[in-house]
Amino acid sequence: MFSCRKLVVIGAGLIGGSMIKALRQAGADVEQIVVVGRNMQVLEHAKQQGYIDNYSNDSSTAVKDADVVVVGTPVGAIGQQLEAIYPNLADDCIVSDVGSVKQHVVNVARQSLKQHSSRFIPAHPISGTEHSGFNASFAELFAGRFTIITPLSDNDLAHIDKIKQLWQTVGSQVLEMSVASHDQIFAATSHLPHVLVYALVNTISRLEDADKYFQVVAGGFLDYTRIASSDAVMWRDVCLTNKQSILDMIEQYKTQLSALQALIENENAQAIEQEFKLAKKVRDELVDKRLQQKQTSSK
Amino acid sequence: MFSCRKLVVIGAGLIGGSMIKALRQAGADVEQIVVVGRNMQVLEHAKQQGYIDNYSNDSSTAVKDADVVVVGTPVGAIGQQLEAIYPNLADDCIVSDVGSVKQHVVNVARQSLKQHSSRFIPAHPISGTEHSGFNASFAELFAGRFTIITPLSDNDLAHIDKIKQLWQTVGSQVLEMSVASHDQIFAATSHLPHVLVYALVNTISRLEDADKYFQVVAGGFLDYTRIASSDAVMWRDVCLTNKQSILDMIEQYKTQLSALQALIENENAQAIEQEFKLAKKVRDELVDKRLQQKQTSSK
Repeated sequence: MFSCRKLVVIGAGLIGGSMIKALRQAGADVEQIVVVGRNMQVLEHAKQQGYIDNYSNDSSTAVKDADVVVVGTPVGAIGQQLEAIYPNLADDCIVSDVGSVKQHVVNVARQSLKQHSSRFIPAHPISGTEHSGFNASFAELFAGRFTIITPLSDNDLAHIDKIKQLWQTVGSQVLEMSVASHDQIFAATSHLPHVLVYALVNTISRLEDADKYFQVVAGGFLDYTRIASSDAVMWRDVCLTNKQSILDMIEQYKTQLSALQALIENENAQAIEQEFKLAKKVRDELVDKRLQQKQTSSK
Repeated sequence: MFSCRKLVVIGAGLIGGSMIKALRQAGADVEQIVVVGRNMQVLEHAKQQGYIDNYSNDSSTAVKDADVVVVGTPVGAIGQQLEAIYPNLADDCIVSDVGSVKQHVVNVARQSLKQHSSRFIPAHPISGTEHSGFNASFAELFAGRFTIITPLSDNDLAHIDKIKQLWQTVGSQVLEMSVASHDQIFAATSHLPHVLVYALVNTISRLEDADKYFQVVAGGFLDYTRIASSDAVMWRDVCLTNKQSILDMIEQYKTQLSALQALIENENAQAIEQEFKLAKKVRDELVDKRLQQKQTSSK
């Protein structure tokens, strides 16, 4: 079970907010939870509901005496936050993040936190919804999901364990991987799909008489475009900070799409069917595996 | 409320099966429901449960004395079925289908049903799940969804109304549009997304160490690839029979994707954010509209 004296969460949106609610629900031994945010009304309400002990709009002073700080802002704002808090960090304070991109965040942490960067533990909870903000957060967001930790070479094992405990306490399963693997893997399975779906929605919205098209969309359309409702700034930052891996994946995707396009052009029925069956098999297996994991974890 | 003497459903999979269950649930006045299928065990079970009155594996004899026949097979198999039933159709029998592509089906109906094709009412319920077969069917599949009817110039208004009533009775809202509009619209909002998602899953499954990628996919990945679990033969047929519209949409999509790729390449933060915000706005509005429709229809 995760415990600490003073936990500061900078940017309590969907992820930070859900983390706090889950810590409270798990009964984690945290003396004080302080949130840094911009919407004082929302934070006052969170305090009244007992989720947080205090709040501030100034991360620099808020982190004083903290033993754990989690930066929950979009990736593009992490550097600025780390620079602001650096002068006031206690020597023993562990700093972490929740960013979807890791190499960029590590670079920024090395630069902003200087010698304190050995106490920076990069983390990425693989959870989310298309909604954002503290009001969209909920304690169950991480249940049964993965959180990836990409430790730095000079991280202390005890500090890595502390952040692992945090994510295990809120219900997720923690996996370690290298920074490079992380950015490559999520470029393919998360960043690419977001780019593809944003492009799909915009392709249709730019057709003449787009309204006619949208009038009769199936329920399925809303499902597979769900991620297009994700926070635009967060995903802009992801595209800018994991640029090369994402561009590589877009190229590979275009090759695959053009191959399928050629099969349709040539009416190669057998090959089209094979392609579709392969994709179906792969996804059906993923669903089965997920089901087994859930059954195992609920035992 | 839909009524008829003898309804024959050829190919009672997800759509045909759900239609029958919904007709029964609505208490439609149908003296006899006969299903033509291949899996006699499933159909015997459906009979024992009271969903159908009889079944057969021979469409040609099954349609004798029917006043309504609905062909529920994948688009590629409709021609063969229409040819098989043509000799035994009663003069007053209305024939319809549930195909995702309409021009091809109309051509096939003109050819196979000859002078009887004026009694062919092309229909397309915009409903489905990623599962297939009678056992995956359920009465609520069409509730609050659209069914598109694309009438032929020589269709009798009374016959169009009969098929409209059928789909209204099972809970869907019926819209009429031209064959050409239908095929263009659904190429964009349904056929294109299926092609894109099949290509996405296969792009990742062909990466070296694909298992490593799939090991940590977010729940979201399973959502936006849900349609890749759809029936491969059905979607192969859609691609072959709505070929030109789909190829046109793939081209437009590739242009859009390449434009987004260039923005990322050039790190054009503002334009990327604008693109993502546009897509988010469009989808959020669709969700709101859907919600309003549901509230209105439940009043």
